[in-house]
Amino acid sequence: MTFYADCQARVAVELISGRWPMVVLYALSHGPARPVDLRRQIGGISQKVLTETLRRLETNGLVERHRYAEAPPRVEYSLTPAGHDLLIPINALGDWAARHANAVLAAQDAAGA
Amino acid sequence: MTFYADCQARVAVELISGRWPMVVLYALSHGPARPVDLRRQIGGISQKVLTETLRRLETNGLVERHRYAEAPPRVEYSLTPAGHDLLIPINALGDWAARHANAVLAAQDAAGA
Repeated sequence: MTFYADCQARVAVELISGRWPMVVLYALSHGPARPVDLRRQIGGISQKVLTETLRRLETNGLVERHRYAEAPPRVEYSLTPAGHDLLIPINALGDWAARHANAVLAAQDAAGA
Repeated sequence: MTFYADCQARVAVELISGRWPMVVLYALSHGPARPVDLRRQIGGISQKVLTETLRRLETNGLVERHRYAEAPPRVEYSLTPAGHDLLIPINALGDWAARHANAVLAAQDAAGA
């Protein structure tokens, strides 16, 4: 069996690569949230970075933006079905990390990586 | 509940980011293999890139290198327990991609991303 370099799983990895996409998707796993709620839940993310991350996730079809015509207008974000399904590998990565991340970090330190 | 930016799952994502780590780990899921076998199985990978990828995976404790004192000497690589466990999220990413990657790529095209 031959494995081709352009296997689709890499599309998924690129979507969750980087510091914030996975954390924002995970924060939305508890239901729709306003940006201000997300900032409160996610330690260390700036408004600018949160806005960019949400826009990228929206462009990729992983989150949806809902605008409510209230005074002042209210905006909420929620996971699309594709975004919700991405929580499965994200949780699997979390489980793997809980078991192995420390050993990997130690191996990297030992190798001076 | 607060999600911190330094969640360990990101260690896992960084290990499988990039074009080749995930493909090489997946190719080794069928058992120990020599570099020449891996090159045959993985379309499009050069000897140099394969060697670098294997060395990085070894540094991160995901694969092991076995050297057999034969003439000529034989070298094989195999997954460590941590490497083997990483196949779980990798397969979950593959399953997700099989269902959603095309829609994401279409959404990216539509957005001119």
